[in-house]
Amino acid sequence: MADLSIREATARDAGTILGFITELAIYEKAEHEVLATEEDICNSLFGENSSAHGLICSLDGEAVGFAIYFFNYSTWLGKPGLYLEDLYVRPEQRGGGTGTEILKHLAGIAVARGCGRFEWSVLDWNEPAIKFYESLGAKPQDEWIVYRLTGKALTDLAAGSVS
Amino acid sequence: MADLSIREATARDAGTILGFITELAIYEKAEHEVLATEEDICNSLFGENSSAHGLICSLDGEAVGFAIYFFNYSTWLGKPGLYLEDLYVRPEQRGGGTGTEILKHLAGIAVARGCGRFEWSVLDWNEPAIKFYESLGAKPQDEWIVYRLTGKALTDLAAGSVS
Repeated sequence: MADLSIREATARDAGTILGFITELAIYEKAEHEVLATEEDICNSLFGENSSAHGLICSLDGEAVGFAIYFFNYSTWLGKPGLYLEDLYVRPEQRGGGTGTEILKHLAGIAVARGCGRFEWSVLDWNEPAIKFYESLGAKPQDEWIVYRLTGKALTDLAAGSVS
Repeated sequence: MADLSIREATARDAGTILGFITELAIYEKAEHEVLATEEDICNSLFGENSSAHGLICSLDGEAVGFAIYFFNYSTWLGKPGLYLEDLYVRPEQRGGGTGTEILKHLAGIAVARGCGRFEWSVLDWNEPAIKFYESLGAKPQDEWIVYRLTGKALTDLAAGSVS
């Protein structure tokens, strides 16, 4: 394998990250859903109240992929978990183990931080990915459904809150 | 409604929170899965590196429920989201809208923090809860499956990481 390096992203990577987010969205035919600006990335990943983190993966010194992760929580364990929100490797770099190296790096962060688990989500029709994740020993939490409140439904619920 | 108040938990609530976690586990017949100690709760919710938050809900001055939440991330929006990990209200206080008030309070935190969304998970057989969440305008993200790596599978993956 060529010279692969993985490091924590910093505010100077915001433009690179937005570029990768846009490439990922084009790949997923979801470009119209990308509303993030470089300023949003700066504030949300590197600002005072940021709660998510980025990784930049470089091959021979050139950035070829990124990951966004944050810490979630296991109530039964009373410990954090690590959740991988997004992982993207440029198409021309795929198949060489780059994605696996990013997963290994994240597993290392999870263990170092004392996390009880490492989680991510997959679309239920993505059988090659599912097969790969199961080969790593990951187990599907398929009895759980995430519910999402957004837009007006969210602000309406908030408006009725007691203080 | 009696005098209901909801506030951020502090380290002094760790024992109360562990008591509620244990009650919740007994209710879910999962008591054997609770490995958290009061020290774990202190470190993971109130320690230097904590990334999750607690709410305490009191009725006429007595703690009757709690919630644990953290901030997740929307890559398309470049914004945090709020994720409700656990919500528990003592059985004798249910049906009076206490749970709904906690959801409203969390929606208020999400809006104040600039979150693009508010999410939580439900077991796929819990039809009364699903009906209630849909009445609030929440949408199921049911094409996604969470994969979880834990225990030896997690440490094995971490052991192979590049630096």
